[in-house]
Amino acid sequence: MKKNILYAQSGGVTPVINATACGVIETARQNRDRIGKVLAGRDGIIGVLREELIDTTRERKADIAGLRHTPGGAFGSCRYKLRSIEESRREYERLIEVLKAHNVGYFFYNGGGDSADTAYKVSQIGKKLGFPVQCIGVPKTIDNDLPVTDNCPGFGSVAKYVAVSILEASLDVASMASSSTKVFILEVMGRHAGWIAAAGALAQREDGDPPHVILFPEIPFDRKAFLARVKQAVETHGYCSIVVSEGVRGPDGRFLAEAGTRDAFGHAQLGGAAPVVAEIVKDGLGYKYHWAVSDYLQRSARHIASETDVEQAWAVGAAAVKLALEGKSGVMPVIKRVSNDPYRWKIAETRLSRVANREKKMPRSYITKNGFGITPSARRYLEPLIRGEAYPPYDKHGLPKYVRLKKAMVKKVLPEFEV
Amino acid sequence: MKKNILYAQSGGVTPVINATACGVIETARQNRDRIGKVLAGRDGIIGVLREELIDTTRERKADIAGLRHTPGGAFGSCRYKLRSIEESRREYERLIEVLKAHNVGYFFYNGGGDSADTAYKVSQIGKKLGFPVQCIGVPKTIDNDLPVTDNCPGFGSVAKYVAVSILEASLDVASMASSSTKVFILEVMGRHAGWIAAAGALAQREDGDPPHVILFPEIPFDRKAFLARVKQAVETHGYCSIVVSEGVRGPDGRFLAEAGTRDAFGHAQLGGAAPVVAEIVKDGLGYKYHWAVSDYLQRSARHIASETDVEQAWAVGAAAVKLALEGKSGVMPVIKRVSNDPYRWKIAETRLSRVANREKKMPRSYITKNGFGITPSARRYLEPLIRGEAYPPYDKHGLPKYVRLKKAMVKKVLPEFEV
Repeated sequence: MKKNILYAQSGGVTPVINATACGVIETARQNRDRIGKVLAGRDGIIGVLREELIDTTRERKADIAGLRHTPGGAFGSCRYKLRSIEESRREYERLIEVLKAHNVGYFFYNGGGDSADTAYKVSQIGKKLGFPVQCIGVPKTIDNDLPVTDNCPGFGSVAKYVAVSILEASLDVASMASSSTKVFILEVMGRHAGWIAAAGALAQREDGDPPHVILFPEIPFDRKAFLARVKQAVETHGYCSIVVSEGVRGPDGRFLAEAGTRDAFGHAQLGGAAPVVAEIVKDGLGYKYHWAVSDYLQRSARHIASETDVEQAWAVGAAAVKLALEGKSGVMPVIKRVSNDPYRWKIAETRLSRVANREKKMPRSYITKNGFGITPSARRYLEPLIRGEAYPPYDKHGLPKYVRLKKAMVKKVLPEFEV
Repeated sequence: MKKNILYAQSGGVTPVINATACGVIETARQNRDRIGKVLAGRDGIIGVLREELIDTTRERKADIAGLRHTPGGAFGSCRYKLRSIEESRREYERLIEVLKAHNVGYFFYNGGGDSADTAYKVSQIGKKLGFPVQCIGVPKTIDNDLPVTDNCPGFGSVAKYVAVSILEASLDVASMASSSTKVFILEVMGRHAGWIAAAGALAQREDGDPPHVILFPEIPFDRKAFLARVKQAVETHGYCSIVVSEGVRGPDGRFLAEAGTRDAFGHAQLGGAAPVVAEIVKDGLGYKYHWAVSDYLQRSARHIASETDVEQAWAVGAAAVKLALEGKSGVMPVIKRVSNDPYRWKIAETRLSRVANREKKMPRSYITKNGFGITPSARRYLEPLIRGEAYPPYDKHGLPKYVRLKKAMVKKVLPEFEV
């Protein structure tokens, strides 16, 4: 009997996580002879635990195709981390029960390092409980912090958004700087690693081009050096354009933007490094400033997605199905860079145990010695990831045609479960 | 002898003010038999006073065409208001001197209400001083607050950016809301009028669609009604998506943005109605929130410009040249809506005296009775303005090809002048 795929989205969504879902579903549909249905957890793993499963076979072909250009998480996502098998045994057992009840042979978990860890553990416990399920991690994170894979689907589009946005805003500031705003600060995501902030530098083409300062989480904030740099930019170019990561910390190790609240994982909830940096500029130099915090806009801006990113996101979804058909478990499809110029990539695979709970930091060699810019090697790495445009279709009213799924639910057969 | 045009950009720039410059220069070049050069004030009127004039004839045809898709102010702009002729007589006389010295017969001032006023005064004083110059105001403002014209070039593109952005961010929040962020707040510009905030509502297609709350500068902020509305949205849809104008005021008349939350360091957070609204949500309802402040991004996002807006921006520039050739002075080309469905518009003209220093407020009838949304008449007015996409070309690295002008300066012939 053909087995079903259970697909779940995990953690923060990206402009292209649905392109991965599209890759999974379209490829599964092409292999109807060997694969049953693709079921999707509503709101991620929480829905799976609650036996809230969406039957994707009820969705129209055009809507599944439309996932390729629709941002957000079409089936819903959540931040819910399963801990060790000992601590979360109840959840793992329930998971296996749900998989069993719905004839699931393949569990695809689409997320970051935490999700790779969960998928790995599910593959372990399935065997122990006598219900072997093939578990495949599918990479996704705007933070680009997964190991092994050359880059993470989701990152390239955010990088393109940040590069285009700082390019455009810098043209704005430059036009007015002689009599008005001299310093513009754009805050971007990236709690622990400066990949997203680094992408701002892609806006530079010639010496002196904006952004003039990038503040990385990797480099402790040095007020004096920062102010000297801003002053120099204003005196040389008439204005200063700054990209600041939400994860920048002071010399004391505290986030510049620490808000004190914490999310479900116990991470400090950030937001507002830009206004703090603006205050420092005002106090130290007295320049007129403006600041922007792009927050969710950056990770949902499908309208300015990178074509490379969309293709890779689709490809890892399709590859997950192929790995499943090859009988693999405990693995993740990854992107392997074949060459830089011309940029070529292919899909490879890795063991989930190599990915789980490991963070890929940005190499120090990617940041210039002064700590405010990126090096040529960083540029060679980043540049291909934002290449190409992949516009969504628009309706006659001038808005992108993003799909809305029916989300027909599979009938529950198990008792309720408290999550 | 053929007279030159002097063109100057004024005030905050827009994603399409350069499309207007393109319309002026391309149309003037088509009329070489009757018009001399187009000169442009560097950094607007300040450059004119300083006799810093850019010779646009030195720019390549392709670069002038590229202005149509380049954001910012290509010749530079400034915030510098000439006061009454009595108070600013020295500046007006200098202006006339500069125009005379450079054989300028036509002064085009591309800006908002203040600029229309200045252009009007220059036309008056030119006559008095025996150097009649044809003065044409050319409309531009993202705030959409000029009278007479149906809408202002610049507004449509910002409106499109806001509608697309809140649509995308809402998909993001909706996917995560069951276990994470429930309230998303996007702050937009518009200090005195809610036109830009109202544009967020264009993201709505069906009942219950986001944004669920819009906070207008026209409606005094009512904490209790606001919290009730947010609560209802979260209970009904699982999340609440909010657009807040930077110009929202409390019942005491003070800007909400000045209400002053403090960050972890005890610094007052500067600017930012969004973080204040977020704090109110947290205090009143305890929901997890995220907020974004798009600031300059919204008014420089040429990558998501409205095609209608780009066409109108070009058309008012071209029309200014035609008015000049017809011998007109003290006038402004305006956009006249011919019909709503299908949307048709044409260029008309009005007297600058009818435009100068008058602000077009958003009619109260455009805001729903509860104060949190827009009415069908507002939708009919706004919808056509964001229609059509007008993407800039991209280079092979994945970035828009925005032009950089040479900005060759005209030789100075007058004594220095202190501005």
